[in-house]
Amino acid sequence: MVDLNSDVGESFGAYTLGNDDEVLSYVTSANIACGYHAGDHNVMARTTALAKQHGAAVGAHPGFPDLGGFGRRSMAVDPEEIYQMIVYQIGALQGFCETENIILRHVKPHGALYNQAAGDPDTAEAVVEAVRGINPGLILFAPAGSKLVEAAREKSLRVASEVFADRTYQPDGSLTPRSQADAVLHDPGQAADRILHMLSSGEVEAVDGTRLPVEADTICVHGDTPEALPFLDRLYHMLRQREITLQIPGGSL
Amino acid sequence: MVDLNSDVGESFGAYTLGNDDEVLSYVTSANIACGYHAGDHNVMARTTALAKQHGAAVGAHPGFPDLGGFGRRSMAVDPEEIYQMIVYQIGALQGFCETENIILRHVKPHGALYNQAAGDPDTAEAVVEAVRGINPGLILFAPAGSKLVEAAREKSLRVASEVFADRTYQPDGSLTPRSQADAVLHDPGQAADRILHMLSSGEVEAVDGTRLPVEADTICVHGDTPEALPFLDRLYHMLRQREITLQIPGGSL
Amino acid sequence: MVDLNSDVGESFGAYTLGNDDEVLSYVTSANIACGYHAGDHNVMARTTALAKQHGAAVGAHPGFPDLGGFGRRSMAVDPEEIYQMIVYQIGALQGFCETENIILRHVKPHGALYNQAAGDPDTAEAVVEAVRGINPGLILFAPAGSKLVEAAREKSLRVASEVFADRTYQPDGSLTPRSQADAVLHDPGQAADRILHMLSSGEVEAVDGTRLPVEADTICVHGDTPEALPFLDRLYHMLRQREITLQIPGGSL
Amino acid sequence: MVDLNSDVGESFGAYTLGNDDEVLSYVTSANIACGYHAGDHNVMARTTALAKQHGAAVGAHPGFPDLGGFGRRSMAVDPEEIYQMIVYQIGALQGFCETENIILRHVKPHGALYNQAAGDPDTAEAVVEAVRGINPGLILFAPAGSKLVEAAREKSLRVASEVFADRTYQPDGSLTPRSQADAVLHDPGQAADRILHMLSSGEVEAVDGTRLPVEADTICVHGDTPEALPFLDRLYHMLRQREITLQIPGGSL
Repeated sequence: MVDLNSDVGESFGAYTLGNDDEVLSYVTSANIACGYHAGDHNVMARTTALAKQHGAAVGAHPGFPDLGGFGRRSMAVDPEEIYQMIVYQIGALQGFCETENIILRHVKPHGALYNQAAGDPDTAEAVVEAVRGINPGLILFAPAGSKLVEAAREKSLRVASEVFADRTYQPDGSLTPRSQADAVLHDPGQAADRILHMLSSGEVEAVDGTRLPVEADTICVHGDTPEALPFLDRLYHMLRQREITLQIPGGSL
Repeated sequence: MVDLNSDVGESFGAYTLGNDDEVLSYVTSANIACGYHAGDHNVMARTTALAKQHGAAVGAHPGFPDLGGFGRRSMAVDPEEIYQMIVYQIGALQGFCETENIILRHVKPHGALYNQAAGDPDTAEAVVEAVRGINPGLILFAPAGSKLVEAAREKSLRVASEVFADRTYQPDGSLTPRSQADAVLHDPGQAADRILHMLSSGEVEAVDGTRLPVEADTICVHGDTPEALPFLDRLYHMLRQREITLQIPGGSL
Repeated sequence: MVDLNSDVGESFGAYTLGNDDEVLSYVTSANIACGYHAGDHNVMARTTALAKQHGAAVGAHPGFPDLGGFGRRSMAVDPEEIYQMIVYQIGALQGFCETENIILRHVKPHGALYNQAAGDPDTAEAVVEAVRGINPGLILFAPAGSKLVEAAREKSLRVASEVFADRTYQPDGSLTPRSQADAVLHDPGQAADRILHMLSSGEVEAVDGTRLPVEADTICVHGDTPEALPFLDRLYHMLRQREITLQIPGGSL
Repeated sequence: MVDLNSDVGESFGAYTLGNDDEVLSYVTSANIACGYHAGDHNVMARTTALAKQHGAAVGAHPGFPDLGGFGRRSMAVDPEEIYQMIVYQIGALQGFCETENIILRHVKPHGALYNQAAGDPDTAEAVVEAVRGINPGLILFAPAGSKLVEAAREKSLRVASEVFADRTYQPDGSLTPRSQADAVLHDPGQAADRILHMLSSGEVEAVDGTRLPVEADTICVHGDTPEALPFLDRLYHMLRQREITLQIPGGSL
C-alpha cells in the first residue's frame, strides 16, 4: 500500500505548466501550488475542481514568494515568517476546498522551502507548527529520514514519509541536488524498479552504493516534463500489477 | 445600535500604513487587508492577533491584485475571476483566524472592487457568490442602497448596510469620487452630526441637497490619515454619549 | 516594402511562451516584453541577444503591470503614470541593448495599453511623450488610423502604422475585440491575401463589408499559438514571392 | 574631500518611506531604488527630478526582487542572473535620467545584494561586469576593503570606497550585521567623530578594538529613521566646519 503524489496547479495566468489533467488520472494525492512560487486564484480553483473530479486527495503545496525563481531559490526567511507564509497559503487553498465542498488532506512544502525544512530544524519546526496551527488534522508530506519528519513526530503531527521515483539519493539520505549530473533518473524502468525495491526492502541505494533505510508512505512523481507521463504510466501499472494498493496515506505519528 | 468598522492591516513589508493599534481600540469590526492591494502574511497575522486582543470582530478586506495602485484603480476583471480572487483572499485570512482561534465574521471588498461591486450587478453577484461559496455564515458589508446589497439579499446572504462618516454622497446614493474636491469631510463635528442624523432619521443629504433614504448598520471610519484618530475619537464618544450601543451587525437578509 | 513584426520575449521564469527562435527567423522587427505584463530580466537578455543574432530590429513592448492578466486587462491608470511606466520599461530594455551593443529602434505598447492608447487621446499623448522623453529617435508602432498615430504626428514622433494579419476590423477601424467570435482569422491563406490587398490597395474590409483606408507600414504576426508558425511562413514566402521587400520602417512624421 | 550619499526613492505606491526631500538637501550622491526591493516608476521619476533640483548626483540602487523583504534577505541567485537583474534596474533608472536630461553617475547595490557582493567573489564579478556592460563610465560604490572593490579594480571599473557613519565594523572589515545589538551607532556626535577619524587617519576601529585601514571616498548616511536627519545635519556641518569639501567621487581604478 502506497500513495502516489504529484505537484499540480503550477500554471500561472497566461502560462501553462504541466499536464495536470493527465497526471491527476494517475495520482492519489495532488499537491496544489498556492500562488507564491506558482499558481494563481484561477489555476487553484480549476485544479481543485479537477482533483476532485479525478478523486485525488487535495493537499497544499506552499513555497517561497518567488514566482520568478519558481520557489527553487533558497531565501533567508526567518522561521516566524515561514510560519506565516505557510498559514497564508494553506488558508487560501482551503478557501477553494470549501467552494468545492472537499476536505484539504495534506501539505507538502515546495522546492527550496522543502529542502530547507528537510535539513534545518528551525525551519522544520516552523513548518510543523504552521500546519498544526491552521489545521491539526492535516498530514505533512516530508522527505524520508529528514528533520521535517522528526519535527512532525515530535509535535504529534501526522506525517507521510516521501520518496522520489526519479531522483537519486546522497549517502546522508538527502536528494542529489538538481545541479548535479546524476540527480535525475531518466529511465522509467529503472525508476520503477527502484521504487519496488524500496517498498519491498525498506532500503534505497545512494549514489555511492550505500544502502539507506527508507520509509516510503508516498511516492512523488513529476508531471511537468515530456518524459513525465510515460514514466508515471509505467510506475502506475507496475504497482497495480504487483497488487500494491494505491491509497492516500493516513500518516503515522 | 450600530457597528463601527475600519480598514486595517494595510501595511506591507517594511512599509507602515495607519495606526492600527489605536484604531482597533475604537472599532467593533476590523476589515483586514488580505495581501492583494495591501497587507502581507506577517501583517495579517499581527493584525488578526491585535483585533482579537482589542475584541474587534475580524473581517476580510479583499481587493484587486494591484499593490502598486493600492487596489484603488478599476481593472477589467471578469466576474468569474472576481469570484476566485475573493475566495483566495478570504481563505488566506481564515487561515490566520484559525491560528488565533477566532471566527471570521464579515467581508468588505476594498477600493475599486467595492465601487465596482456597488454599481455593476455582475460584479456584485460574483462577490456575493464567492462569499457564500466559501462560508455562507459571513456577513457582507456593502454600501447602503447599492447593487451589492440587492445581490446579497437576493441570494439570502446576510448583509450590513454601510455608511461613511467622512465621505459625501451623490444624488444617486453613490459616494462622491475621491477625485472631486467635495468628496471628503474634514470636520469631525460635521461628520459626527451627519452620522447622528442618519441614525435618527434614516436619511442622508446628498451634495446637491437631495434627501436620500439610508440604512446605517455599520459606519466606516478611516485610520490612515493624521486627522483620522481625532475624527474617530469624536464619533466614538458622541455615539456613547447618546447611548447608541456599538455592536457588530447581525446582518439582515 | 513593408516591415514584419512580432511580440517576443513573453516567457517568464520557469514559464515558456511562444517560439521566439523560429519567429525571429522571419520578422524584421522584434517587440520585446519588458517585465510588466510578461518577460523578466533573464528573458529580456536572452531575447535581445537572439534578435541581434537573427538580425531583427529590437523594440520595446511595454504593458500594464499585470503579469497575472498578461497585460490584457484595461486598468484605470492616469496618463501621468502611463508616462512613467513606459519610461521605466523602455529604459530597462535599453539596458540590454547596451550590453548587446545594439540600438533600440522602436516601441510598441502591449495589449490593453495598446488598445487604450489607440482610442483615448490622453493615453495616446502620454505614450508619445514618454517615448519622446526617453529617446526621440525611437519609432512608435501604432494601430493604423488610431489616435495614437495622430498623437505621434502632432508631436513629430516618427510612427509606423501597424496592421494585423490575423485580426478582423470594425467599421470604425478598431480591431474586433478578442471576446467576439470573428475576431481572429484562422486561415493562413485568407490572412495572407488580406495583407496583400492592404498593401496594393491601401484598404481593408471591415467585418460589415465597409472598406476602410489603411496605411500598412508594419504587419503584426503572432508567434504564441501552434498555428502561428505556418501562418507566418505562408505570409513571409508570399511577400517574398511578390518581391515585396521586408524592411524595418523608417517611420513617417 | 569626501562624498556624502544616501539611499532614496524607497517609497512604493501608497507607502512613503524616508524624508527624501530633506535628505537630498544634504547629500552629494543619491542612490535611487529601482523597483525591485523598493521604489516604483512614479517614485523613481519623482526622486530623480528631486535629486536634480537639489544638485545631487544620481546613482542606481539595485536590489534583489523582494519587495516583501525590502531586499534585505539573501537569495540564492546565480551570478548570471545577478548580472541581468542589475542591467535591468540600471537601465530603468537611466530612462528617468534621460527624461530629466541628467547623467547617471554611479551604482550602489542594496541590502543583501550589497552584502553578498562584498564577500562573494562571483557575485562581485557579476555586479562589476553588469555595471561595465551597461555603462563603463559609471562609478561603483562598494564597501571599503571588500571583494567588490577588488573586483572593480581588477576590471578597471572606477570604484568609490564606502564607509558608514552609523554602523560598526567587525575585525575582518565587514559591517556588524543588523541582527546584533551593537550594529548601529545611535549617537550623532560619536558617529561624526568616527568619520572625522577615518578621514584624517585612514583607519577605523572594529568592535573588538582592532584598527583597520579604511579608504573613505563616500560616506553613507540613512534617511529613513526619525533620528536620521539630526544625524545627517550634525555630520554635514561638522564636515563643513573642518573645511572638508563635499564632492561626488571621481572614483579610483
